[in-house]
Amino acid sequence: MEPERSLGEEKIFSGKIIKVSRYTVELSNGIKTTREVVRHPGAAAILPYDEATGKVYLVTQFRFPVGQTLLEVPAGKLDIAGEDPLECAKRELLEETGMSAARFEYLGYIFTTPGFSDEKIHLFLALKLEKVAELSTDEDELVDVVETDWREFLKWCEEGRITDAKTLALALRSRRFLEGRE
Amino acid sequence: MEPERSLGEEKIFSGKIIKVSRYTVELSNGIKTTREVVRHPGAAAILPYDEATGKVYLVTQFRFPVGQTLLEVPAGKLDIAGEDPLECAKRELLEETGMSAARFEYLGYIFTTPGFSDEKIHLFLALKLEKVAELSTDEDELVDVVETDWREFLKWCEEGRITDAKTLALALRSRRFLEGRE
Repeated sequence: MEPERSLGEEKIFSGKIIKVSRYTVELSNGIKTTREVVRHPGAAAILPYDEATGKVYLVTQFRFPVGQTLLEVPAGKLDIAGEDPLECAKRELLEETGMSAARFEYLGYIFTTPGFSDEKIHLFLALKLEKVAELSTDEDELVDVVETDWREFLKWCEEGRITDAKTLALALRSRRFLEGRE
Repeated sequence: MEPERSLGEEKIFSGKIIKVSRYTVELSNGIKTTREVVRHPGAAAILPYDEATGKVYLVTQFRFPVGQTLLEVPAGKLDIAGEDPLECAKRELLEETGMSAARFEYLGYIFTTPGFSDEKIHLFLALKLEKVAELSTDEDELVDVVETDWREFLKWCEEGRITDAKTLALALRSRRFLEGRE
């Protein structure tokens, strides 16, 4: 038996990016309650790492919901539900940093906030980088690129200068890949 | 000048946990667009770590939005906007694991998904643990406690058995605290 069984969905909002529904559910103990769910198409996030120089490339972007400019890894939504996350990663890396990568390591996915949303972000480490274009972000997405050392980036994640959850998750998974287990 | 200036808010939904609004905004380049925002009261997440045994305590919980039972650190919403995150951390630790902690290390906060929500989660490492009560979660929140070693927990985060973003972020920040920089 499912731990929580839907007894009905009330569709509340269908926006440009998110959809919101409220479900009536029955729990395994028989109790009835409601669940508010924000549907999101999913996304890909990329840490571009230059093996020759030890540099990583981040972006700063004003985030209206939190009212702050945040330092994050390049990332973007899947264009269509079911878009290959790797294709999304390649596109967003190019759009936000002007770079392509000859090698992508898939580092699994995360759920950003599974208590109220289904948003799933696929994590990639991008290697063998090449600068191929000027930036070409969407007109309503203004980003700047920040270049720093891998160890400095890790410190920013650990010490709290970086607060974006997907960026911290990608730092943890990338660290395993780049430095191994001690 | 603010990078994005609100020209108006359309309130869409006010639920038990989230509120949803759509804003019309003007960007610094003059372009007008919309932003969909999910307001959340904020939360605290806690990694309980027993220094004597090296054990950490996690919880499993069915997450309706993603349709899966996830392995996560104990966590919960701030009861009221402006509740002291430390008080929230103490309450949630007790409710979800039956333990109290004589020492809490604050490891900063994260934004779980700043592209569409203001949800901010405060991260704590709980030390000097003591078992003080049976579990007493809310009746619509059914959780089980999982005990494992710190290094095993870190491996689960790195290798993808754990997919919850706040748990990965807390693993990264806790690692710095427990193991230092190499």
